[in-house]
Amino acid sequence: MIPKIAIQGFEGSFHQIAARHYFGTDITFATCATFSEVVRQVTSEEVDCGLMAIENSIAGSILPNYNLLQQANLRVTGEVYLRIRQHLLMLPGQSLEDIREVHSHPMALLQCRAFLRKHLDWRLVETEDTALSAKNIRERHLAGTAAVAGSLAAELFNMDIVAEDIHSDDQNYTRFLVVERAEKAKPVANANKASLYFHTDHQQGSLARVLVRIADRGINLSKLQSYPRPGYTWQYYFHADLEFDDARQLEKVLEDIAPVTDSVRVLGVYRKGETY
Amino acid sequence: MIPKIAIQGFEGSFHQIAARHYFGTDITFATCATFSEVVRQVTSEEVDCGLMAIENSIAGSILPNYNLLQQANLRVTGEVYLRIRQHLLMLPGQSLEDIREVHSHPMALLQCRAFLRKHLDWRLVETEDTALSAKNIRERHLAGTAAVAGSLAAELFNMDIVAEDIHSDDQNYTRFLVVERAEKAKPVANANKASLYFHTDHQQGSLARVLVRIADRGINLSKLQSYPRPGYTWQYYFHADLEFDDARQLEKVLEDIAPVTDSVRVLGVYRKGETY
Repeated sequence: MIPKIAIQGFEGSFHQIAARHYFGTDITFATCATFSEVVRQVTSEEVDCGLMAIENSIAGSILPNYNLLQQANLRVTGEVYLRIRQHLLMLPGQSLEDIREVHSHPMALLQCRAFLRKHLDWRLVETEDTALSAKNIRERHLAGTAAVAGSLAAELFNMDIVAEDIHSDDQNYTRFLVVERAEKAKPVANANKASLYFHTDHQQGSLARVLVRIADRGINLSKLQSYPRPGYTWQYYFHADLEFDDARQLEKVLEDIAPVTDSVRVLGVYRKGETY
Repeated sequence: MIPKIAIQGFEGSFHQIAARHYFGTDITFATCATFSEVVRQVTSEEVDCGLMAIENSIAGSILPNYNLLQQANLRVTGEVYLRIRQHLLMLPGQSLEDIREVHSHPMALLQCRAFLRKHLDWRLVETEDTALSAKNIRERHLAGTAAVAGSLAAELFNMDIVAEDIHSDDQNYTRFLVVERAEKAKPVANANKASLYFHTDHQQGSLARVLVRIADRGINLSKLQSYPRPGYTWQYYFHADLEFDDARQLEKVLEDIAPVTDSVRVLGVYRKGETY
């Protein structure tokens, strides 16, 4: 059976590019307007898996998604990193000289501002989505209009890439998590990474005590993210990503930190992801 | 001389309410479209101080503002906490029964969704800002239209509050920092809080070592926030808020953590803020 993957965003989006790297191309997609809808479709088993962006190397964490993960009955079973490459797409046969308007999401326009600034005669139009802008140009046969979008949008909507890699920052990566309904998820073989969250009492040094126990087991804390603890003003949950060589290290550290944390929950144990 | 304060947002906004609590009412304002513009006006000395939201008790940290603080030549000289209270504002003489439309920022409409759901016949219109919606109703004499906004907008634009405290969550607080140009800022008397940032080498346990030294000085870590280190993919700065009784504790801990951190910078030493 061909797996069905819920992603946030539209056909041709960076979520879809990331999903194709992780699962291969023999998959189908449920495109969702929001991350909450991705979570809903996964937990209700309308799809097999979900893929959701969790952080970007420049903009930082997508904080609401940490709360979503904490509240949902999901397990993280994998991750994938994608370099964000923006191109300029037009109808086949068109070229740079034909451009009068450029459509894209405001963030994508911002990511390409050095390139776009060289063409002050182009009118920039902010839209809902990168790939959707490309699709719209294709469907409405908009000559003279280009979209800033990823390569998959060019492929899916049969558009020409008239300028490649027009983003300003070459080191712009997004990290995506693969999530499954907790009861359905199978243990991942050769796992070397885990995501968990906890909170501590508000004693002095309580977080230090947790981190020392993690370090003492030879485990690398690759990310520590605080986010609000719902219902407790100015108290925080800590989301921690741990990297280890051997799953027994993780078992041991969970025993070690139990006495100095409250509400520890492991969101998933998985293989450290590749970068594409 | 009457101090001039740069705030993000419009006249009547929550930033302005917070500023009036902190500085009193004998101040003038420069309203800025963005937080970057607040920083620019403070560093160029067009204003005396700036006030910028840094975190919310429900939504969490405003991550871009941590990067702004890190890059700007500012000093944090104070903080203030404000409970976010949303009301329904109309032209004088109008009442709930007259409402056909409600205007506000999407986040404010969301914060009041339980109340608004009881009135399914009201058309909800998303706007740029809460206070600006009230001002617009006043200036265009829009009968039958209400704005969701704070009490100051009612006062400034001479509107009636036709329904008070319509927000769903009673424990919704925003924390604001007071910032001044670094060279101009004077030391704060009786300071008991500091904001600083640092990064560590990527050795195992490096963050634990820093936090242990902070705890060993009897200093309370009230907030630890990671955010991306520009130019270093998947490396993080840590912003730490420290609470102490005596400024000498802070001096000592800065000596203690120097050998286990890189690029420590104290953003400000100030008095723990009041909640209004």
